[in-house]
Amino acid sequence: MRPLKLSRAFTLIEPGPVVLVTTFDGSKSNVMTISWTSVLDFAPRFTLTTGPWNHSFAALRKSRECVLAIPAIDMLDPVVGVGTCSGADTDKFARFKLTAVPGKIVKAPLIAECLANIECKVIGLIDKHNIVVLQAVAAYTNPARKEQRMIHAAGDGTFIVDGRKFDRKKMMASKLPPGL
Amino acid sequence: MRPLKLSRAFTLIEPGPVVLVTTFDGSKSNVMTISWTSVLDFAPRFTLTTGPWNHSFAALRKSRECVLAIPAIDMLDPVVGVGTCSGADTDKFARFKLTAVPGKIVKAPLIAECLANIECKVIGLIDKHNIVVLQAVAAYTNPARKEQRMIHAAGDGTFIVDGRKFDRKKMMASKLPPGL
Repeated sequence: MRPLKLSRAFTLIEPGPVVLVTTFDGSKSNVMTISWTSVLDFAPRFTLTTGPWNHSFAALRKSRECVLAIPAIDMLDPVVGVGTCSGADTDKFARFKLTAVPGKIVKAPLIAECLANIECKVIGLIDKHNIVVLQAVAAYTNPARKEQRMIHAAGDGTFIVDGRKFDRKKMMASKLPPGL
Repeated sequence: MRPLKLSRAFTLIEPGPVVLVTTFDGSKSNVMTISWTSVLDFAPRFTLTTGPWNHSFAALRKSRECVLAIPAIDMLDPVVGVGTCSGADTDKFARFKLTAVPGKIVKAPLIAECLANIECKVIGLIDKHNIVVLQAVAAYTNPARKEQRMIHAAGDGTFIVDGRKFDRKKMMASKLPPGL
């Protein structure tokens, strides 16, 4: 995995991919599948929607750390598997053959198989709306990985892979943040 | 446009598309391009990230209403155009040949060219994080429209179109909300 400058980390979440969120509760790591995320700013800060119905939430709340790991389309079945069982009774890393790799700053692990990983600190919990506010503190990509297409969840049990890319950098120049 | 049951409206935002957000300030309509959205629940409620730097924000705040209109890939250039000029000095509907159509509940217009539209009420403003919380109150799709593929922003001036769809409904059955 190659370090990515933090000013580019929002480009991993802005497209709206399914993410794997890892946590560490002090004794073991867990991972959940989440589609309900948003970019908040270029810092970058992000939101996740989660709450007590997710086993990972207790670890997220206690440790105030997590990793957002971005899977590629060749991980679709493990991603669905992670999202349909619970860390309460399953070691999901073992079951879905995901390799936990130590991060640089947070104790939640990176996932070696993913196309990118973002180490995050929890900087806010908006309990009324089940929003967790995250600050990215380190990011990595995996440029040697051949399959780089992200997964998008349609919400009805179907998933969409990234298609063709269109370059509108010139038209967008006035809106792109410095240092991108 | 065909009414969509509200219990399915979250499936329009969960994939993470670029959206056009329309507002009405009491005298004229405006539209902005936003990628920073999230689903909050199946009700459905959504978040938008916006603030005083967007001309539309004053109307959104005052009227407490908007429409999330989902453009298809054949609208990429108008979508980028809408996102790179301001309603302060431009009638974006006229300039980008977007057709404003009255909604059923809110005064912000639907956009006829889009593949779907969601009428929303503002039910919360989290100023600290520039989050606007929306409650969908009506939704529509445009099944007669030939091009149905959504646009995803990569954040660096490039955009990605929806690719192939994968069906994992059976594996996901335990996690899908009733009435979908």
